Amino acid sequence: MRENLTMMTDLYQLTMMYGYYRKGLSRRRAVFYMFYRPAEGLNYAVAAGMAQLRDYVAGLRFEEEDLTYLSSLGLFDRGFLDSLRDFRFTGSIDAVREGDFIFPGEPIVRVDAELSQAQLVETALLTLVGHQTLIATKANRIVRAAQGDPVMEFGLRRAQGPDAGTLGARAAVIGGCGSTSNVLTGQLFGVPVSGTHAHSWVMSFDSELEAFRAYADCFPDKTLLLVDTYDTLRSGLPNAIRVFREQRQKGYEPLGIRMDSGDLAYLSRRAREMLDEAGFPKARICASNDLDEYLIRDLKLQGAKIDLWGVGTRLITSQGRSALGGVYKLCALEEDGRLVPRIKLSDTLEKVTLPGKNSLYRLYDRDGMATADLIAPHGERIDFSAPLTIFDPQEPWKRMTLTEYTARPMLAPLFVNGEKQPIEESPLALSAYRASQEKTIWEEHLRPLNPHPYKVDLSDSLWALRRDFMEKRPG
Amino acid sequence: MRENLTMMTDLYQLTMMYGYYRKGLSRRRAVFYMFYRPAEGLNYAVAAGMAQLRDYVAGLRFEEEDLTYLSSLGLFDRGFLDSLRDFRFTGSIDAVREGDFIFPGEPIVRVDAELSQAQLVETALLTLVGHQTLIATKANRIVRAAQGDPVMEFGLRRAQGPDAGTLGARAAVIGGCGSTSNVLTGQLFGVPVSGTHAHSWVMSFDSELEAFRAYADCFPDKTLLLVDTYDTLRSGLPNAIRVFREQRQKGYEPLGIRMDSGDLAYLSRRAREMLDEAGFPKARICASNDLDEYLIRDLKLQGAKIDLWGVGTRLITSQGRSALGGVYKLCALEEDGRLVPRIKLSDTLEKVTLPGKNSLYRLYDRDGMATADLIAPHGERIDFSAPLTIFDPQEPWKRMTLTEYTARPMLAPLFVNGEKQPIEESPLALSAYRASQEKTIWEEHLRPLNPHPYKVDLSDSLWALRRDFMEKRPG
Repeated sequence: MRENLTMMTDLYQLTMMYGYYRKGLSRRRAVFYMFYRPAEGLNYAVAAGMAQLRDYVAGLRFEEEDLTYLSSLGLFDRGFLDSLRDFRFTGSIDAVREGDFIFPGEPIVRVDAELSQAQLVETALLTLVGHQTLIATKANRIVRAAQGDPVMEFGLRRAQGPDAGTLGARAAVIGGCGSTSNVLTGQLFGVPVSGTHAHSWVMSFDSELEAFRAYADCFPDKTLLLVDTYDTLRSGLPNAIRVFREQRQKGYEPLGIRMDSGDLAYLSRRAREMLDEAGFPKARICASNDLDEYLIRDLKLQGAKIDLWGVGTRLITSQGRSALGGVYKLCALEEDGRLVPRIKLSDTLEKVTLPGKNSLYRLYDRDGMATADLIAPHGERIDFSAPLTIFDPQEPWKRMTLTEYTARPMLAPLFVNGEKQPIEESPLALSAYRASQEKTIWEEHLRPLNPHPYKVDLSDSLWALRRDFMEKRPG
Repeated sequence: MRENLTMMTDLYQLTMMYGYYRKGLSRRRAVFYMFYRPAEGLNYAVAAGMAQLRDYVAGLRFEEEDLTYLSSLGLFDRGFLDSLRDFRFTGSIDAVREGDFIFPGEPIVRVDAELSQAQLVETALLTLVGHQTLIATKANRIVRAAQGDPVMEFGLRRAQGPDAGTLGARAAVIGGCGSTSNVLTGQLFGVPVSGTHAHSWVMSFDSELEAFRAYADCFPDKTLLLVDTYDTLRSGLPNAIRVFREQRQKGYEPLGIRMDSGDLAYLSRRAREMLDEAGFPKARICASNDLDEYLIRDLKLQGAKIDLWGVGTRLITSQGRSALGGVYKLCALEEDGRLVPRIKLSDTLEKVTLPGKNSLYRLYDRDGMATADLIAPHGERIDFSAPLTIFDPQEPWKRMTLTEYTARPMLAPLFVNGEKQPIEESPLALSAYRASQEKTIWEEHLRPLNPHPYKVDLSDSLWALRRDFMEKRPG
């Protein structure tokens, strides 16, 4: 739609920027952090979208037509609009890596910049990171349910617009899908594309048999036939087997068949039998049709003979949980040259923010398994070589002491004082990284329903700071 | 991300195009139609996205870098890739108008073009029309629940990517929202933008009172204050009222307050009392926080005193129903210079497609209310001046005869032989059109839960054609 997304922001970011400008606060140093709120289906998430966040921030520029439009709103004075002409991001951003496993409440992006700059980027930051993290997470849940079978992302046509389809497919690969049907995603991000033919191919010929023969003739070494246009077991499979035999005569082995309707458990078992009996035990069965992690799990439990899963609508829209629920909160502000913690209070403890500029550490046991995450004030020196006692921030009587452990800082730089930092952007490389991380998380935390909560704890100092803020709450 | 969306398609469109090319079928005339499948929450829909569909089709071009990429896939021969260089859409497309009320199963877009062209556009057509129709529909449901109160679209940060936020906001306005927070949507599509300030504004000052004063000072005639940063009733409202009084001294009247957390029914009633008692009966109360049509209805039933609704996540992602479920099916193909109907069969009657190139008519009673829609073969002359007997296509014993009625053709041209046709594109104008149409649909069909199904009937000839196809089904 537009490459420059500077204007893709909430109006209130601009009215606040104007207010900061009028009150002389624009250039005060501020720290904000992004986290996501707990929700079913999001007990863990797979981080994604940082590459697009970085491109967005690096490209921030108000063009003349933008200033003309903003002027037409009658909200801003000339001085402010002129100041936007030179607007550039000069601050620092740190974030978890794409492919990292993350948990509710913990800082996943941290922005340390002039107040106006940190404010403007809020909306797009939440959109870009929230969307891709949502889809990478849904993909991961689905891929885990497929227990090692390849999962292909097929959702473009049902996506919430072009970016949702294209960036969503990128995120799906980071989450674990092996390929996408979206050619643009393949081209832009270097991921494998997959696809064969639709019902319309079959309907474009005088008979199904003729259509299958024509397809096999065009793609002799990649023959995968869609068998459910008219009747899967009585027409599609017999015709496919006939064409597979003809191909074998010519020296080609078929890839297999695809089914997109009907009861996939029953049909796939029958199809497997028919293919085996006909002498094609290696022909693969691919299934699609409103699949998600729950249906794949149930089909497997019922003995479905499916080798390859094509997942569309429910993956690309994260059906049932269509937003990550990311938020971005001010946590520190410069006063007299010093960064002072700020807090957003609420009647709900989960909605109370973490004051101060903080860092995130992952703590691993001696087997390399993640034990807990620790949030601590940035710059606070923690002796990770000594035993560490951690406790549940909501229920501080739940404590444990770690002895043989290692700590990994989770936030890595995207920008340092306005300079873009190199990061891995390739979805395939990020998927490999995600797989390496996945092995460090106990299965109990990754269960689709009622998983055991992963520990996200606060350092003593941060816990005390937050408690002090809550006790002196204004009233 | 990219203006040219030609490559944003499923790989199988290209493999099929290659197959058609190899088999000499590319240029055969074909007709496809788009419809959506019945689903809860989509008993009716508000059509949208045709302007973007038109732009997409008009812009179809394979660029050199695209051909290089496609060549790298090792699927296509040189002759085919060369033929793509001159690919343009030269066919005809008809569609319902943006803002029209549409129902499951009926043709909402019809493509009549060379087979290859009609095939290629499938994916983006479904993405663009499906997404915006989904969001316009969700917006309409929410706006109807608000019973005339203004609804502002606030969802950008939770949208599934930039297009989902920006095109989604366009669709939300077509569906009935009065404004959006998305500045880019305002700029690109000429719709009103709205927004004031966030919690971070309040947290950027030493006290809430100081923050409110500063905001009122910057926007003296547009003072709308967010009162829930620390404590809505004990801190936010008293501080807001104090600033409103100070503003009144200076000759300004406040716009009102906004609440984004807590129990909105209770808090809005208390806020109304406090504002009234303080002498600000005209100050408006704006609420946001995970709103949708069900929560707005319940808040109204519980006597909430909310004048303005800001709706975000659940609108912009159509939470609970995150895809329209649009499909695009071949219905006729040229044979020996004649257009011959085609059908996609299924064990489920709802999944059986409508054979032949068809048109859609809306039938109105003498009071101008829509009675039923009628699908009939394109070009078939129907005498709409004579009484018309219509019947339910699933249960043909359900019949009724219309006497005093009028018929309106619902499909209007987007392209005629490759020529782009003028259509209304402005969301505000389309919203006015939608409002005019909304009055012709019985409330019973628009109820959020268990609405009475709207009649979508087939002409005698189309019904008989479909029956014949089903009876001679291959097996």
